[in-house]
Amino acid sequence: MSDNHRGIEGLPPAMTRLAHELARLPGIGEKTATRLALVLLSWPRERVIELAESLLEMKERVGLCASCFGLSDCATCAVCANSGRDHGIICVVETPADLLAIERSRSFTGAYHVLHGALAPAQGIGPDDLKIGPLIARIEGRPAGSVREVIIATNATIEGDATALYLAKALKPLEVKTTRLARGLPTGSDLEYSDVATVSAALSYRREL
Amino acid sequence: MSDNHRGIEGLPPAMTRLAHELARLPGIGEKTATRLALVLLSWPRERVIELAESLLEMKERVGLCASCFGLSDCATCAVCANSGRDHGIICVVETPADLLAIERSRSFTGAYHVLHGALAPAQGIGPDDLKIGPLIARIEGRPAGSVREVIIATNATIEGDATALYLAKALKPLEVKTTRLARGLPTGSDLEYSDVATVSAALSYRREL
Repeated sequence: MSDNHRGIEGLPPAMTRLAHELARLPGIGEKTATRLALVLLSWPRERVIELAESLLEMKERVGLCASCFGLSDCATCAVCANSGRDHGIICVVETPADLLAIERSRSFTGAYHVLHGALAPAQGIGPDDLKIGPLIARIEGRPAGSVREVIIATNATIEGDATALYLAKALKPLEVKTTRLARGLPTGSDLEYSDVATVSAALSYRREL
Repeated sequence: MSDNHRGIEGLPPAMTRLAHELARLPGIGEKTATRLALVLLSWPRERVIELAESLLEMKERVGLCASCFGLSDCATCAVCANSGRDHGIICVVETPADLLAIERSRSFTGAYHVLHGALAPAQGIGPDDLKIGPLIARIEGRPAGSVREVIIATNATIEGDATALYLAKALKPLEVKTTRLARGLPTGSDLEYSDVATVSAALSYRREL
C-alpha cells in the first residue's frame, strides 16, 4: 500500500489492514479495496463471519482431483465420478477456470484434464511442470480404444498453440484421435473490426454449408 | 447466484459458496466472483487466513467515534484525539468514505462530523436518521466561540444540497460561521464537455484574481 493510505487519520488500522489484503487481489486497486472495506464494515456481523468462514473452508476443502487435476473437494471430482458423462472423450485445458468456461457453455459432456499451465520456455515452464505425464498415464491405464478422442482446448495464444503441438506429438504413439478447438470469428463480432490473425483463421477453418 | 453457476460440475460447493459471498460486494458480478475465488484458492494458505482474520478483526474492532461518528477502533477517533488539529473548524460529511476523500486531499487539518447519510424524504430518511442532533449538541457543549466554522461538505447532489440547507438553518441559532464546499469545474476537465449545471455553478462561484 502506498503512502496514499498509510496512516490516514480517520482510517482505523484494522480497516487499513483489510484494505491492504483486498488490494492483493487482481483488478482491485487501493481505492476499490478501501471502498470494499467500508462496504464490508456496513455488512451485518453474521454475513462477514460467513464470508471469512467461506474463505477458510474453501482453502481447507478444495484440492485437485487425482484423475483429471480439476478442482475437487474429494479424491475424485464430480465430473470424473459422473457415470452419465462420456469418459471416452477427454478435453485438455490449461486451468480450472478454462474448465468452468467449457462447462458453462453446456456443449460438452465428456471428461477433462487440467494441465495447470502452458509451455512457456521463456518463463522456464517445460512439459514436466504441466500435468502432461499424468494425462498419458491416464490414457495408457485405460483399456485400448476406450479413450476415443482428446480435445486440446488450450488457449488461442502462442503458449497455448505450443502446448497443443507438443501434446499432439506426445499423444501420437497412443493412437488416439486428437483434435483442437476451432479458431474463427467470435460470435457477435464484426468482420470489419476483426484482427488479421482471426480473419485468417476463420478462413482456414471454414466449413461447407 | 443464477443457474449459471449453481451445480456446475467441476466447481466444488465450497468454491460456489465463496463466489456467492463475494458476489454480494458492489461491482463484483458472478463471473468476477468465480475468478476471485480461483485466485484466492491459488494463494498460500497463510495469506487466505490473514484475509479471513482481517475481516473478522475489522468487524470486531471498528466502531464509531463517540464525538464525530467517524470510524474508530476506540471511543475517540485519531482525528478527535489529535491535539495538533484545529478543533475550531468542523467539516460535516455524509459518510466515512467522504471523510477519507477529504483526508486524502491533505487540504484540511480541522475536525470532522459524519452524518451517516443525507436527507432523502422519498426514502424516508429524515433529520432524526442522521447525526444532526449530536452535531448541534457537540457545538453547544463547547465554550461559546470555540467552534469558529462549520464546513458543510455534503455531496453536490439533490440530497446533499437539501441536507446542507437544512443544516445551515439548524446551525443559525448557534451563531457559528457556516460554509459549503465550492462548486465549479473539476480540475483537469474541459469546459467544452462540462454539463450546464457545472458551468453555471463555476460562473456563480467565480473568484477575483
